[in-house]
Amino acid sequence: MSDEKLTPRNVDFSEWYNQIVLRAELADYAPVRGCMVVRPYGWALWENIQQALDRRFKETGHVNAAFPLFIPMSFLEKEKEHVEGFSPELAVVTIGGGEKLEEPLVVRPTSETIIGHMYSKWIQSYRDLPVLINQWANVVRWELRTRLFLRTLEFYWQEGHTAHATEQEAREETMRMLDVYADFAINEGAVPVIKGVKSEAEKFAGAVQSLSIEAMMGDTRALQSGTSHFLGQNFAKAFDIQFLDENNTLQFCWTTSWGLSTRFIGAIIMTHGDDQGLILPPRLAPIQAVIVPIFKSDPETATVMETVTRLQAELKAAGIRVKVDDRTEVTPGFKFNDWEMRGVPLRIEVGPKDIEKGTVALARRDTPVRDGKPGREGKSFVPQAGLAAAVADLLTDIQKSLLERATAFRDSHIFDPKDYAELTQIVQNGWAYSWWCESAECEVKVKEDTKATTRCMPLDQPGGKGECIYCGKAASQKVYFARAY
Amino acid sequence: MSDEKLTPRNVDFSEWYNQIVLRAELADYAPVRGCMVVRPYGWALWENIQQALDRRFKETGHVNAAFPLFIPMSFLEKEKEHVEGFSPELAVVTIGGGEKLEEPLVVRPTSETIIGHMYSKWIQSYRDLPVLINQWANVVRWELRTRLFLRTLEFYWQEGHTAHATEQEAREETMRMLDVYADFAINEGAVPVIKGVKSEAEKFAGAVQSLSIEAMMGDTRALQSGTSHFLGQNFAKAFDIQFLDENNTLQFCWTTSWGLSTRFIGAIIMTHGDDQGLILPPRLAPIQAVIVPIFKSDPETATVMETVTRLQAELKAAGIRVKVDDRTEVTPGFKFNDWEMRGVPLRIEVGPKDIEKGTVALARRDTPVRDGKPGREGKSFVPQAGLAAAVADLLTDIQKSLLERATAFRDSHIFDPKDYAELTQIVQNGWAYSWWCESAECEVKVKEDTKATTRCMPLDQPGGKGECIYCGKAASQKVYFARAY
Repeated sequence: MSDEKLTPRNVDFSEWYNQIVLRAELADYAPVRGCMVVRPYGWALWENIQQALDRRFKETGHVNAAFPLFIPMSFLEKEKEHVEGFSPELAVVTIGGGEKLEEPLVVRPTSETIIGHMYSKWIQSYRDLPVLINQWANVVRWELRTRLFLRTLEFYWQEGHTAHATEQEAREETMRMLDVYADFAINEGAVPVIKGVKSEAEKFAGAVQSLSIEAMMGDTRALQSGTSHFLGQNFAKAFDIQFLDENNTLQFCWTTSWGLSTRFIGAIIMTHGDDQGLILPPRLAPIQAVIVPIFKSDPETATVMETVTRLQAELKAAGIRVKVDDRTEVTPGFKFNDWEMRGVPLRIEVGPKDIEKGTVALARRDTPVRDGKPGREGKSFVPQAGLAAAVADLLTDIQKSLLERATAFRDSHIFDPKDYAELTQIVQNGWAYSWWCESAECEVKVKEDTKATTRCMPLDQPGGKGECIYCGKAASQKVYFARAY
Repeated sequence: MSDEKLTPRNVDFSEWYNQIVLRAELADYAPVRGCMVVRPYGWALWENIQQALDRRFKETGHVNAAFPLFIPMSFLEKEKEHVEGFSPELAVVTIGGGEKLEEPLVVRPTSETIIGHMYSKWIQSYRDLPVLINQWANVVRWELRTRLFLRTLEFYWQEGHTAHATEQEAREETMRMLDVYADFAINEGAVPVIKGVKSEAEKFAGAVQSLSIEAMMGDTRALQSGTSHFLGQNFAKAFDIQFLDENNTLQFCWTTSWGLSTRFIGAIIMTHGDDQGLILPPRLAPIQAVIVPIFKSDPETATVMETVTRLQAELKAAGIRVKVDDRTEVTPGFKFNDWEMRGVPLRIEVGPKDIEKGTVALARRDTPVRDGKPGREGKSFVPQAGLAAAVADLLTDIQKSLLERATAFRDSHIFDPKDYAELTQIVQNGWAYSWWCESAECEVKVKEDTKATTRCMPLDQPGGKGECIYCGKAASQKVYFARAY
């Protein structure tokens, strides 16, 4: 942690992002190109994300399991679109135990194929359905341009894989998990997301339909933050996942898959962060409140620390994730900057004057700051008595404010361009919400002209018909065009 | 799940083990040789193991992180003993993104090297120490003879890696984590373990000293169930992990590593299981109590299910992991066998007569059974009122009984042979606890003669001196000789 200022977001958003990740000690570069080390603070954030999602998965009837890291190369080749989509980015094990392998093994880029193989063994009858399994795993995709959290060779995610007796059930599952992701993103991450359908060009390799949640980052670029795929019978046919139905007729299953990854940490950073550093939503923050004791002389220390220890115990007992920063080798000012960089939602200062008055000073991370320090407006003085309840209320309020702020920012950067010329302007600093004829040609042209891609056709459509913003032909869907991560 | 009987343990212990793993649906064979799929029931067990350990790690000041799967081949070569130990069993990635890699990447067999590299970046000053990091990860070792859970190409584990300013601190950490493992194994797994020091031949490649917990399985073979290594300055010197001490002098760190893996699931199976199947210790069991409703006619069903639903809610509210088996396509008898196979500690039967009397029938999984069915002595009838408290008490009692039974079994199979001839007999069906001169020669001879290896020199020694059981020379340590997994 250095005391240098971050590069401001409006100077170089990308550089700002990289600096935050390193200085807040969320992650570091690994010695292998494109790989990352998730440091303890970043991993604690991921663990909170995992818990919030896992609880939702279990509430919707899913169980966890673990499938192998290695997939025989021949498995990937069984689903034509799938292998085309993934073969350029595979890491391949060719040597095991000192010997060249007869069949090379792929390090999983995703697990539809190997899970499909196992499901074909496990599923016999309609009584075995639905199968609702998730796994928390590392996967590898050999990306050329990498960014910490956003796109790394190895990343961490969960991948759900389900098998159903009917198309309708599988489509419902796809939608249910999209809703789970949106609920998680909005209510835990304070990241407002839009649910929608991906275009044919942007969908998952091997899916019939891909749905996603899309979020707007602080530079207005879009980040696909979670995906849910209806796979039809594509993988069931490739891997022979069949069951005997109630009439004793052999049928292919209908399958889905859905995933959310450590990329979401990037979404949190770029949705909420400011020029002082990270801002974490309280529900996911590893540390929700940090207590900074303030003292100058030895006799003060004992008195202050006594109160600090008592308050820490009270907050902890109330279920608040609290940390005391009792370092003696750095100044309170250094600590303030440090915890601001790390995005701790609430700072609690306790000094000799507070002891006299029976108060503490609270500084919210999300309120305006001046010259890199919290201004008056960011600080309040509250009684020590009842502090835990006050802190809990404030955390709830911060969570709410972050979501409102991000939603307002997003909504003020989405426009409905009157023509294509306006669209090309809009996507330089916002999203265009336009009618689109759903042809790949128009999609490609927009991308060539502006670097903006179709993000999703939102589930929530205005209805009616319009004219494609590019070609003017009849269109029945509106789509978001945006530059994306 | 088939209704066939298991191969009895005294007929073929190894076959009994394999059948349990498959029929209790803990794991399955993956399509890649030597790899396993951990099925939902097995993974739920592992998640409970993870929680029990993770809580202990955090209580002792550790944090989690995630280091990369891929390690440059050159890293392994930096520590001479380490590379010699691991190079025969490496999986190597030679192709990435369709191109041959300049430097092959090893799929981590363990992470001392890559973590050592990162620590050398992160650690500058004595103020940065100690570093106490753990990771939950998958690792790969190219084993030739594999067994589900016991030895698989890919397995799941946690690996702790710590760095300290002094030798004493690092040695204390090594011992602290050994104690954590023993406490976990005994109090959560009901697996009695012996803490001790590994011989030079059996220690971790690159360690100064390896400690382990050793357990006796139902066939009297030993299973190393967790290890804690004092690495001295070996890895610090290989990876340049240095810090400025309080006098501004550059020093090498002292490091440790410690791990416990999915192998522990094998320990649970082989410590507690019987000829009816798995027996799970209540504290780790994914399902602690299963309710089997019993009814013959439709009017009975509604009455019974009403009570069952109410009892389920009461047990759940009391924090008991309870499941209702309401399948209609199988008989109660089939369900009894099924849940016995899966090792659920307690079965609760609710039938029309129980409704009349306001009781339920409880059958403990750990008490004697007759003809594959729980005998009278295994069943008790208790009032529905206060059931949750009765169940909680019973689970505590089952946990205690399992540990006592396993401890009694182990202690009755450890002998102190009077001479080497007796030792060679003992290790066919037990452990020999003997004086040993600590020479590799004697250790090798015993292994050649009997297949028994030294398991550990227990920390708890009788004191005094003795004569080596093999060569008769002076010995200051007693050691366990046993055939091992």
